[in-house]
Amino acid sequence: MSRLTKKLHCVADFCVIPIGVGPSLSKYIVETQKILNEAGLTHKLHAKGTNIEGDWSEVMEAIRKCNVRLHELGVPRINTTIHVGTRTDKEDSIEAM
Amino acid sequence: MSRLTKKLHCVADFCVIPIGVGPSLSKYIVETQKILNEAGLTHKLHAKGTNIEGDWSEVMEAIRKCNVRLHELGVPRINTTIHVGTRTDKEDSIEAM
Amino acid sequence: MSRLTKKLHCVADFCVIPIGVGPSLSKYIVETQKILNEAGLTHKLHAKGTNIEGDWSEVMEAIRKCNVRLHELGVPRINTTIHVGTRTDKEDSIEAM
Amino acid sequence: MSRLTKKLHCVADFCVIPIGVGPSLSKYIVETQKILNEAGLTHKLHAKGTNIEGDWSEVMEAIRKCNVRLHELGVPRINTTIHVGTRTDKEDSIEAM
Repeated sequence: MSRLTKKLHCVADFCVIPIGVGPSLSKYIVETQKILNEAGLTHKLHAKGTNIEGDWSEVMEAIRKCNVRLHELGVPRINTTIHVGTRTDKEDSIEAM
Repeated sequence: MSRLTKKLHCVADFCVIPIGVGPSLSKYIVETQKILNEAGLTHKLHAKGTNIEGDWSEVMEAIRKCNVRLHELGVPRINTTIHVGTRTDKEDSIEAM
Repeated sequence: MSRLTKKLHCVADFCVIPIGVGPSLSKYIVETQKILNEAGLTHKLHAKGTNIEGDWSEVMEAIRKCNVRLHELGVPRINTTIHVGTRTDKEDSIEAM
Repeated sequence: MSRLTKKLHCVADFCVIPIGVGPSLSKYIVETQKILNEAGLTHKLHAKGTNIEGDWSEVMEAIRKCNVRLHELGVPRINTTIHVGTRTDKEDSIEAM
């Protein structure tokens, strides 16, 4: 089986910025944390985003759901930044710096 | 059908940074452009990354394949940055600023 | 003289996201382009941001002024993403991929 | 005095990626943490970067020094990502989410 169809573990950091709503974003952060909890992926909130790790496709699907949920809550426009790290030389995790 | 399972159009910008190889990255850029061409998604290279648009899941899958391909070429570690915009108030595309 | 006080050339890409205002951001983009023109730095708008190059401190000062200007226009909160590339092995510019 | 010359407080997150060296980056992270300590700015390391806060120009100068230091250590190429938040509606800090 080609690696192109295998799972790809990643450690990511992302930040979802709702645009076109008020400047207080805490209620949206609460919603995205709920979705991450449901996704069952290891994640950890910090001052400017959320660290998350797991299979690439599952991580991106969880962040997609965060976007969809905020649109459902009435956010007309969202800008999401994602940093993703993958490596083949050793195991990587949120805990490993 | 819930929106959580529907397609989510996005306009994204991403940059794949190979780590642990030499400072010349052009051959890797060529490889990622091939994968984007195969994916059939509208995309456009600029000085610091690539604009791309399409369904969220297809865009993230194309970027995942870029990562897998570079690992196959011997890159031990990759850092990818992705900016993704989604909006429900109007159509969005690479051409619309 | 230590390199710590010398000029550091960089090629950057940045995106200024106004938060707490409406979803239409084009008038803010126009303002930031004016500031970049006044700064006299080479820059080029693309679908998800602006490429800019020059001395690190001048580039960051120009982006700072963009933030200050948007706050003056009533934007209560701003999220700015900046990707900066520096290199010592060869000349770098927006034109060099 | 115009706001354009006043201090602008920001809460930022940044990640410095050395290119063209080996995949182990921990020694470079140690160096950047030293520079941040010397800069006297509040900062906090997480799995995918460093949170930092202070006056915009001082924050960007500290990150510039990180880049210069890594080049001095022989890194030929660096890619730095910076997310910066500024706001005028309330005080912001690394501790305030």
